[in-house]
Amino acid sequence: MREIKIYSLKKISQKNPQVAAVKMLRWKSGAKRSEKSDQLAREEPLEIRVRGRSVAVTMRTPGHDRELAAGFLLTERIVRERKHLVEIATCTASLEPQNTLDVFLRAGVEVDFARLTRHVFATSSCGLCGKASIEAVKQYFPPVDSKISVPAKTILRLPALMRRAQKTFSATGGLHAAAVFDVKGKLLVLREDVGRHNAVDKVIGCGFLENKLPFDAHILLVSGRASFEILQKSLAARIPIICAVSAPSSLAVDFARANHQALVGFLRDGGMNIYSGAERIEN
Amino acid sequence: MREIKIYSLKKISQKNPQVAAVKMLRWKSGAKRSEKSDQLAREEPLEIRVRGRSVAVTMRTPGHDRELAAGFLLTERIVRERKHLVEIATCTASLEPQNTLDVFLRAGVEVDFARLTRHVFATSSCGLCGKASIEAVKQYFPPVDSKISVPAKTILRLPALMRRAQKTFSATGGLHAAAVFDVKGKLLVLREDVGRHNAVDKVIGCGFLENKLPFDAHILLVSGRASFEILQKSLAARIPIICAVSAPSSLAVDFARANHQALVGFLRDGGMNIYSGAERIEN
Repeated sequence: MREIKIYSLKKISQKNPQVAAVKMLRWKSGAKRSEKSDQLAREEPLEIRVRGRSVAVTMRTPGHDRELAAGFLLTERIVRERKHLVEIATCTASLEPQNTLDVFLRAGVEVDFARLTRHVFATSSCGLCGKASIEAVKQYFPPVDSKISVPAKTILRLPALMRRAQKTFSATGGLHAAAVFDVKGKLLVLREDVGRHNAVDKVIGCGFLENKLPFDAHILLVSGRASFEILQKSLAARIPIICAVSAPSSLAVDFARANHQALVGFLRDGGMNIYSGAERIEN
Repeated sequence: MREIKIYSLKKISQKNPQVAAVKMLRWKSGAKRSEKSDQLAREEPLEIRVRGRSVAVTMRTPGHDRELAAGFLLTERIVRERKHLVEIATCTASLEPQNTLDVFLRAGVEVDFARLTRHVFATSSCGLCGKASIEAVKQYFPPVDSKISVPAKTILRLPALMRRAQKTFSATGGLHAAAVFDVKGKLLVLREDVGRHNAVDKVIGCGFLENKLPFDAHILLVSGRASFEILQKSLAARIPIICAVSAPSSLAVDFARANHQALVGFLRDGGMNIYSGAERIEN
């Protein structure tokens, strides 16, 4: 069979701008294929400019872009303090203002632009390994010193709370989520994105912009896996407890142990694996 | 309860160097927590040097590193032809030779080092949007012109074939996979990695190093979602059919439609959604 199909163009949802509607063919064994409407997570590039200079382009799901920029700049160590950030505005000079943000910093704040073109974890002196990567982060963000602990039953409730708030995932089945909870298990902020690091940058950026950092009596939950990058970003926000619905990587575990962070993996089906900081999870 | 737990150090598995063993506490509702052994996907940085110059550091699961470097250099448009690549060798000058690769190119081959510090998809002239991102890729890689099509029942068999070959996922539950099949549904190469883009770079790099590109009568299957980045890399290898076990993003669909690629999502449970190139999937 040689069927040539003309697809309809996709449309951005009016109800949820993170979603685009698209026509597709559904194929199921034993049934004829049929044209159906489907909802997809949107993916568009975002360019972040600092003092007029492009510092990053990331593919992200539109929405909460200022938070994404703020979280990125904090966790990538371009901006250290809230007061250094004057404004994050859409760049009207761009032909795609909805995909371009201008970050304005206080006069006198120094920015190490070279950081973003250098490779942060590569150091010529010590070679390159997981341990060196952890040490490199430590020079900027010391281990967490929070003493908090949380009952296991609070932790076990979090995935259901997150899932209920995942509007776009429910529509598309295609988005990562990150959520910050307090020690009582109350959901403070949840963000969704095609990039898991973007979802984490958004929740941290939200705290940064609203002057609610450090998140040192808080829990971060991610919908997927926990990698080095997620742990590194959580340390920047001083988060002492990190939970993942799926598996952690070896380096995420090493990182958490080196920085006094609790790391919980496979948080699902009424159970969890505690890879680090078990003293923070009360029986 | 304030339990201070000293964890054992993790050990790299003798049988599968992509895996590290670690001690953790397993917590299950209604049961006491108990110390258990677990296997994690390894994550370590890899530095890629071209002509002695560092061009990238990526967090990856060790294994098939030369393929990763070759695939990265091809799909990121640093190297265009197999014959330009003389050798990819571990960098003995590094203190971590297992995490550093030196790429040697033929004399006279020009390398645009600036590409990797520039932001590839940012162009000052046209603004930045999904459409511009797709156009930017097109300047380097034209749409596929392969005329192949494949029976739907061949496509439906692929996830089980991939899953059976996913050694490290079976052990850890924590790895992305990418696999290339021929039009008969025969598995040609499968690679696993903590980064989904790395898994794709590895299978493409394998074809590049073994002089088996273009993959223009081939199918790429990824274990997770299909994003812009996955489609972009598959176009570099000239792959006409891309399948994902989970959802595509809006931009992945746009990209596939612009480049005459079939894009199948939610390939599971005996069904699939065809988002682009339905003429390549025979009833």
